[in-house]
Amino acid sequence: MRVIAVIGRSACSVAESAAAEEVGALLAENNVAVVCGGLGGVMEAACRGARSRGGFTIGILPGNDRSSANCWISLPIVTGTGQARNIAVVRSSDAVIAIGGAYGTLSEIAFALDSGIPVVGITTWRLAESDAGPVPIHEAGTPREAVDLALRLAAEKE
Amino acid sequence: MRVIAVIGRSACSVAESAAAEEVGALLAENNVAVVCGGLGGVMEAACRGARSRGGFTIGILPGNDRSSANCWISLPIVTGTGQARNIAVVRSSDAVIAIGGAYGTLSEIAFALDSGIPVVGITTWRLAESDAGPVPIHEAGTPREAVDLALRLAAEKE
Amino acid sequence: MRVIAVIGRSACSVAESAAAEEVGALLAENNVAVVCGGLGGVMEAACRGARSRGGFTIGILPGNDRSSANCWISLPIVTGTGQARNIAVVRSSDAVIAIGGAYGTLSEIAFALDSGIPVVGITTWRLAESDAGPVPIHEAGTPREAVDLALRLAAEKE
Amino acid sequence: MRVIAVIGRSACSVAESAAAEEVGALLAENNVAVVCGGLGGVMEAACRGARSRGGFTIGILPGNDRSSANCWISLPIVTGTGQARNIAVVRSSDAVIAIGGAYGTLSEIAFALDSGIPVVGITTWRLAESDAGPVPIHEAGTPREAVDLALRLAAEKE
Repeated sequence: MRVIAVIGRSACSVAESAAAEEVGALLAENNVAVVCGGLGGVMEAACRGARSRGGFTIGILPGNDRSSANCWISLPIVTGTGQARNIAVVRSSDAVIAIGGAYGTLSEIAFALDSGIPVVGITTWRLAESDAGPVPIHEAGTPREAVDLALRLAAEKE
Repeated sequence: MRVIAVIGRSACSVAESAAAEEVGALLAENNVAVVCGGLGGVMEAACRGARSRGGFTIGILPGNDRSSANCWISLPIVTGTGQARNIAVVRSSDAVIAIGGAYGTLSEIAFALDSGIPVVGITTWRLAESDAGPVPIHEAGTPREAVDLALRLAAEKE
Repeated sequence: MRVIAVIGRSACSVAESAAAEEVGALLAENNVAVVCGGLGGVMEAACRGARSRGGFTIGILPGNDRSSANCWISLPIVTGTGQARNIAVVRSSDAVIAIGGAYGTLSEIAFALDSGIPVVGITTWRLAESDAGPVPIHEAGTPREAVDLALRLAAEKE
Repeated sequence: MRVIAVIGRSACSVAESAAAEEVGALLAENNVAVVCGGLGGVMEAACRGARSRGGFTIGILPGNDRSSANCWISLPIVTGTGQARNIAVVRSSDAVIAIGGAYGTLSEIAFALDSGIPVVGITTWRLAESDAGPVPIHEAGTPREAVDLALRLAAEKE
């Protein structure tokens, strides 16, 4: 099962929500499961989009029970470990699509890059070049571009 | 999706492996997904049994990549948090079936009971009565009995 | 710095609280730091006892800030990982003294035994013999006996 | 006990090591404990500096035992939860000083900012302005400037 993470804020903008929903729908059309942090905002929109196309969605939750999962989650994983679940969200995926996002999203981008998992961003964090060279966040202009890029990067990684 | 955890040692006995395989097969026949710690022994046998009946298996891994997952895992969740993943294994399930097991399994039984998740055991840990009354580990004599009991307890819990 | 964990319920009995306070005081008199889960009940009583003798107390907290720490904690460690901090409490110690306790305490005993860290118990969990032989929870009748035993076991382990 | 985190790579440059050692020494001179990830490189240098001035150092380790701690750690905390310990390093501190650093350090900066803990950087990550406004990483030119700034920010936070 190919799995792509969609990450972003639980309190997101209308534009971020629309982008996330389209990303989710396109991933499902490509038979790719969506993994996310399981809560609202970008996470919920991505799952709603995926389910609208018959997709499969995994929510890796920070809390101690399933009640916090958004209603479009097919499979809730209840970690009980708070934001340590951010690590699991990205490490369980073949590629990551970041949509907007605040510091929690930044931590997920950091863990993904640390693990060699490709990151595609739609108006997300931009990092200045570091000692290790340019930071490989692949910028995409549209949901379709982001999904195409993420699928290609995931395939190349195999 | 109904999900039942199968827990036990990665280095298990032949009898435990046979029991786990039958448990996995019976869960799949009942359209229940198997969640486990994703490694070998009881975990692997349960997944092999489930897959032999077309079932779905989730492996919640302690390490940092998928390479440690047994080959019968449909969906690896890569937590990167070591044995803290034991919490996720039981909290993500509707009921737990423990087969044999050492101290890691005991920690999972403790977290399940702490969370009010029913635990069925096949020759697993027996806990002396505590101040809080008898410890509700439901003993089962056979894999079929364990699966029937776990399904009934999971249904009652809803 | 020698460190001994004191574990037990946040909602404990008067007898457990008295035992924990005496254990904490005796550890401090022996120049041993107390590590615990940082919250109330047994944890708070052990810290209060230690501080009454000028001891040093470490609280490994489940939540996201220091506000939940009991007021006798010298050094709060804020893990943000919920009950996964139970692992850190026992693995950071040279020996564990369990006083009473419910399922959370049982998970800590399991992680300690799994890590080869000696466990001394005062009216705590009793585990039936497993396949691996008798479970090495050393029972102590009094706080002094528990502290003497824990100190000896910690020294032997070196 | 005032606690300031020093974060950076385990495989650091000579300049980063020198800066970290001076930061550690200055923190100890100000009676501030150093918390870090407990391993080598920047972490080890900061601890060595602190200990050279009689300081107290806390190493929050990712692994399962103390053997990976650098030899300047006064108190090892053994989390067993891999990089989830990055959360604990920053959340247990009053302020964070980042020296250089790769993606692990970036995740720590993200968690610190997410928690409202002030971050001072010496040639560390620079984040482009986000929707939420400029990212508050306070740049310092020298170890002394970094320590003065961190102490002031920690005091203001109270």
